[in-house]
Amino acid sequence: MHVLVLGAAGMIGRKLTARLVADGHLGGRSLERLTLVDVVAPAAPAGVTGEVATVAADLAAAGAADRLLADRPDVVVHLAAVVSGEAEADFEKGYRVNLDGTRELLEAVRAAHAADGYHPRLVFTSSIAVYGAPLPNPIPEDFHLTPLTSYGTQKAIGELLLADYTRRGFVDGVGIRLPTICIRPGKPNQAASGFFSSILREPLVGAEAVLPVPESVRHWHASPRSAVEFLVRAASLDGDQLGPRRTLSMPGLSATVGEQIEALRRVAGERAVRLIRHEPDPAVLRIVETWAPALEADRARRLGFTAESSFDEIIRVHVEDELGGSLPG
Amino acid sequence: MHVLVLGAAGMIGRKLTARLVADGHLGGRSLERLTLVDVVAPAAPAGVTGEVATVAADLAAAGAADRLLADRPDVVVHLAAVVSGEAEADFEKGYRVNLDGTRELLEAVRAAHAADGYHPRLVFTSSIAVYGAPLPNPIPEDFHLTPLTSYGTQKAIGELLLADYTRRGFVDGVGIRLPTICIRPGKPNQAASGFFSSILREPLVGAEAVLPVPESVRHWHASPRSAVEFLVRAASLDGDQLGPRRTLSMPGLSATVGEQIEALRRVAGERAVRLIRHEPDPAVLRIVETWAPALEADRARRLGFTAESSFDEIIRVHVEDELGGSLPG
Repeated sequence: MHVLVLGAAGMIGRKLTARLVADGHLGGRSLERLTLVDVVAPAAPAGVTGEVATVAADLAAAGAADRLLADRPDVVVHLAAVVSGEAEADFEKGYRVNLDGTRELLEAVRAAHAADGYHPRLVFTSSIAVYGAPLPNPIPEDFHLTPLTSYGTQKAIGELLLADYTRRGFVDGVGIRLPTICIRPGKPNQAASGFFSSILREPLVGAEAVLPVPESVRHWHASPRSAVEFLVRAASLDGDQLGPRRTLSMPGLSATVGEQIEALRRVAGERAVRLIRHEPDPAVLRIVETWAPALEADRARRLGFTAESSFDEIIRVHVEDELGGSLPG
Repeated sequence: MHVLVLGAAGMIGRKLTARLVADGHLGGRSLERLTLVDVVAPAAPAGVTGEVATVAADLAAAGAADRLLADRPDVVVHLAAVVSGEAEADFEKGYRVNLDGTRELLEAVRAAHAADGYHPRLVFTSSIAVYGAPLPNPIPEDFHLTPLTSYGTQKAIGELLLADYTRRGFVDGVGIRLPTICIRPGKPNQAASGFFSSILREPLVGAEAVLPVPESVRHWHASPRSAVEFLVRAASLDGDQLGPRRTLSMPGLSATVGEQIEALRRVAGERAVRLIRHEPDPAVLRIVETWAPALEADRARRLGFTAESSFDEIIRVHVEDELGGSLPG
C-alpha cells in the first residue's frame, strides 16, 4: 500500500508518519510506500522498511496535485492547512492554501479518475472551527456550520466539496472534525487556544504558564495520540458505512479549564498547579467563548472512534509520548 | 440608486426588473440606474425613466466582475446560476458558473473595497437544494446543509463565502434560500420539479398535464411574485439585523400535491382537475422524495418576509400576473 501524507511536517503529520512506520501496515495491508509532502520537504523517518519519498510542494500551485497523484497512492491523508490565526491575518493565503489547495487536490483526483478509474481513500481533516457561536452544548451532529473565522469557512467548504466529489464517484472521501488537540508538544505559541496545552505542559516540567481565561471556560479536547488514531481509522474504515454525509464529528473530552487544573493537581501535585499564573486577557476570552464546548459524536463512536475520558488520561498520554514516561525530578 | 442584476434574463430576473421599473425606487431611494446582465444581453425593459444598460457577460471570466462593478452599483442582485439539472449533468460548468462565478464576484467586491471602501449590498439567491435527505419536517433553521446535488453544494458554498466576506467587512451580504417557485410561467420543462407548476398551469388554460408522483408528496412553495418581493426586501433590509448568519430561509407554503389539486378544483373546477394525467415515474419520485417538505422560517418572518398561505392564493397570483386576471372561457 502507498500512503501519501500532505502536511507531513506538522505536529500531527509527524506523529502519523511515526505511527504508520511503527505499524508497518494500514487497514490490514502492508505499508510498502510512503510519500511525505509539505511546503518544505519533511524529514524522512527512521526505521522504514519500505520506500519513502519526501517532497516539497505547494498544493495550490498549478500541476502540483497532479504530480503528487501520478503514482496513484491508495490513501491520501490531507492535513495541509494554514492555521486559524494565519488564515485570519492573511485572507488571501488562507483561501489559497485551505480552499484552492483542497480543490486542486480534488480536481487532480477527478482527472485521474477520468483517466483510469483511480478512486483513492481521501482523509480530510476538518475542525470544530466550522461551528460558530451561539452554540448549544453539546452541538448536535445535525447542527449547521456557521463559522466565525475564514479558517472555519474554508474547512466547511472542504467538507462540502469532499461530500460532492465522493457522491459523484470521483473519490472515496472521509472527513473528520478534530477537537482541539491537547497537550500539544513543543513551545508555547501565539494561537488563542495555546493556553489549553501550556497550562499543563509547562507546569509538568517545572515551568510557568499563563492562563488568560476564567477556569469556567469549557472546551472539547483530544490528545495527539487520539488524533493519530482518528486518522488511521478514517484511512481504513468502510466508506459505505458513512452514506452521503462524509464528515464525522470526532469524539473528545468536554472539560473546563478548572477540570484540567484538577487533573494536573492529581498527576503532578500542588507545586505544579502553583506555576499557573492567572492573567485575564479579554481579547483571548472573546475568541474562546465562541468555541464549541462539546460535540455529539455518536456516529463516529459507533464506527469505533474513541478519545480520552478524563484529563488525567490526556496528561498521562503526554507523559508517556513526550516525557519518556515519567515526570522530571 | 444604481442596481445591478446578474442573471437578469431568467424568469425571476425579468420579473424583478419589471417590479423595480414599476416601483421606480428601492428601499426608499429613487432608482436612477439599472444594469441588467446575463450570458446573453437581457431585453431592455419598457417605461424606464432612469438609465438602463444591458450587458452580456460571463461572471466567471477573468475581469468580468471587475468591469461590472467599475461604476460601483449600490445594490447587486446575484441570480446568475446554472440550474440544478444542468449542474448535475455538466459538473465542470456547474462549478465554473455557480462557484467560480460567485467567488469572482466576491473577489471583485473585495478589490473595490480595498481600492475605495466600496461596500455594496449583495443579495445572493440560495435554494432549498442546500438540504438533503433524510430531513425533518419542518427543517429547523439551525439544521445542517448536506446537499445531495452539485447545485446544492455550490449554493451552500456560496452561503459560506457570503458570510465570511461580510464578516470581514468587504461586502454587506444577504442570502435568501428560495422555496420551489410555483407556478412558474412558460412551457413545461425537463426539471424534476416541473410538474409542481405544470399540473396547475396547463389545466388552468385547458391543457393536459402529467403528474409523475403520488398526491401525498409534500413540498415547499412560493409564487414568483413572492420571490420578487423576497429579493426587494433582501435588497433593502438593515443588514445589522442579521448578525453573522447572513442567509435566511424564506417562508413558503408547505403543501402536498393533493392539496395543490384541491385548490385547482376550487378555483377552476372538476374539468380542470380531470386534465391531470397520473403517470408514476419512479425516477422523478426518487429525486423529489429527497427534497424539503417544509422549512422553519421564523427569522425571515420576523424581518417581514411573507409568502402565500394557501394554494388558492398561489393560483390567484398566477391568474392575475400571467393570465390577465381571469381564466379563459
